[in-house]
Amino acid sequence: MKLGRILRESLEGAVPRLVVVQPEYERVIDLASAEYQRLLATGASAEAARRLASALYPGSMSAAIAAGSSFLTVFFSKTATTESSSAVLPIGQVRWLTPIDPPVMRDCLAFEQHLRNTLPALATAMNVEPRIPDVYYEKPIYYKGNPLTLIGHEQEVSWPDYSRRMDYELELGFVIGRPGKDLTPEQAKAHLFGVTIFNDFSARDIQSIEMKGLLGPAKGKDFATALGPWITTVDELDVHNLTMVARVNGEEWSHGSSSTIMWRVEEIIAYISKAEGLVAGELIGSGTVGGGCGVELGKLLKAGDVVELEVEGIGILRNKMGTPAPSGWMPERRIPATQ
Amino acid sequence: MKLGRILRESLEGAVPRLVVVQPEYERVIDLASAEYQRLLATGASAEAARRLASALYPGSMSAAIAAGSSFLTVFFSKTATTESSSAVLPIGQVRWLTPIDPPVMRDCLAFEQHLRNTLPALATAMNVEPRIPDVYYEKPIYYKGNPLTLIGHEQEVSWPDYSRRMDYELELGFVIGRPGKDLTPEQAKAHLFGVTIFNDFSARDIQSIEMKGLLGPAKGKDFATALGPWITTVDELDVHNLTMVARVNGEEWSHGSSSTIMWRVEEIIAYISKAEGLVAGELIGSGTVGGGCGVELGKLLKAGDVVELEVEGIGILRNKMGTPAPSGWMPERRIPATQ
Repeated sequence: MKLGRILRESLEGAVPRLVVVQPEYERVIDLASAEYQRLLATGASAEAARRLASALYPGSMSAAIAAGSSFLTVFFSKTATTESSSAVLPIGQVRWLTPIDPPVMRDCLAFEQHLRNTLPALATAMNVEPRIPDVYYEKPIYYKGNPLTLIGHEQEVSWPDYSRRMDYELELGFVIGRPGKDLTPEQAKAHLFGVTIFNDFSARDIQSIEMKGLLGPAKGKDFATALGPWITTVDELDVHNLTMVARVNGEEWSHGSSSTIMWRVEEIIAYISKAEGLVAGELIGSGTVGGGCGVELGKLLKAGDVVELEVEGIGILRNKMGTPAPSGWMPERRIPATQ
Repeated sequence: MKLGRILRESLEGAVPRLVVVQPEYERVIDLASAEYQRLLATGASAEAARRLASALYPGSMSAAIAAGSSFLTVFFSKTATTESSSAVLPIGQVRWLTPIDPPVMRDCLAFEQHLRNTLPALATAMNVEPRIPDVYYEKPIYYKGNPLTLIGHEQEVSWPDYSRRMDYELELGFVIGRPGKDLTPEQAKAHLFGVTIFNDFSARDIQSIEMKGLLGPAKGKDFATALGPWITTVDELDVHNLTMVARVNGEEWSHGSSSTIMWRVEEIIAYISKAEGLVAGELIGSGTVGGGCGVELGKLLKAGDVVELEVEGIGILRNKMGTPAPSGWMPERRIPATQ
């Protein structure tokens, strides 16, 4: 099943709605609307049908998933999908949101080829030995992103005033389906809900400066991360064997496969669950597939570029680059105290 | 005003409630209960009073603050505070939660003395030149924490299986009151809602290993960060002139002042607001005050230690160290591909 989130107009402005996506029929089905109509048909009052439908299918995908297995069972077994229903919308006319609104968001670097193509250069810039730090072979490490800067399919990428070197990153996004702590990889398999496409847009100039502070990427990543167009549930995918492609303005720049990942998804999930635990709706980026970003190709993005990431079994995530924001306030340099 | 969150028993288990804290009267006032009683007294039905009170004072402090200025105005002007009311609870008998449940959480390193006491040693361990990276003097940089691992006053610190070197960090926690983007420091002042105490518990062994991967701290921090006991609103504080003290088992280990901070709070908030923006309820750690952690003193914490952080105008945040968790699964080392 493919699940997404869209914006629909209501009496109180645009509201998020969960949808089942059926690309083969070029349509999406608004889950709350479909469930409302199903309940009406079973004799529920309009008020009761609205109340129950919005409780089961809120605007938040994380909140919906957190309800546990009832969430999708209801749709499979009962929700009406009549084509003539007002719950059915043409896929070409919807406004997409991020398919998940995660309470926490991490991003790994689990593809060795990407590490080999990028880290030695970064290390050289930092005057560290130009090799991949050993910790990448010991643990599936990650940084944490800002989930509030996620954008959906077809949303424009805002270009921060502090950057002139913009890049994309071709990744998978793993969505967690249920809570767990200190899991083994074998246990962790059951905690993966689905997979989406994750474009970790990066401001390379500030990223390499701030990473010298050893606190990880921040402004270099947290202006926009694209996610979507929807989530494909894990039962429909061979997660470790998906073709991954990136195109810029229609030209193929990157081509890889999830089969080259160094850590299996269940190892990543198990490691993340250690001590801190997982909750439903969390998002984990795989890291960039080998050759899956401009830095590896000696290329940069420019204003107006259209970036498409395509992953087998999911779809195409498309975003257009905005234009650089006008210069704003920047911090004034401090003078180090006399040693 | 001092604001916190506590757990109270309900018909459906323990639920979070917002409270006004009055340490001088040794009591807290449950805001939803007080507002419910006030509405009853004005003639509201019990059902209407419950509905309105819980909408204004939900269990989430971020959600409450996001309602804007009405949140506190109502309390000041109207909410009943009768001492005999069931809304009033003895301060010694409540179960504390984190005073804020932030949607995103960052932690700066804004005290130069702490940088000077810790970073050169870390750099030496990484075979980098043993000096403070220049970026700390250019920008108030930060890492992002996991807001789901925050713990409140008097909650025990869980000790992860992967660490034997546990430490505390004496910091302020800044709570954002309203959204904003690309602010100047002058504008940013109005976005600070209040200040709490932030104990950034750290697993030093894994922290120094994972920071070599350049993605910032993760497992070294994300097992427990203590916050509380409550938030003091900014009108009651001279934020840049607060005495900060840490005690372990009653013995003073750290003593500092927020006056030694290298970046003013409004500069930190303005910088964070760049490109990504702020939302109500966000949490920003100041970074450790000079001398405010065991690493700077050549000391470590042990199981059962009681750590108290005291900040002038706020209160005392107290947490006890748990015992190390039994060893669980750990990732198996990968063999690097032949170059």
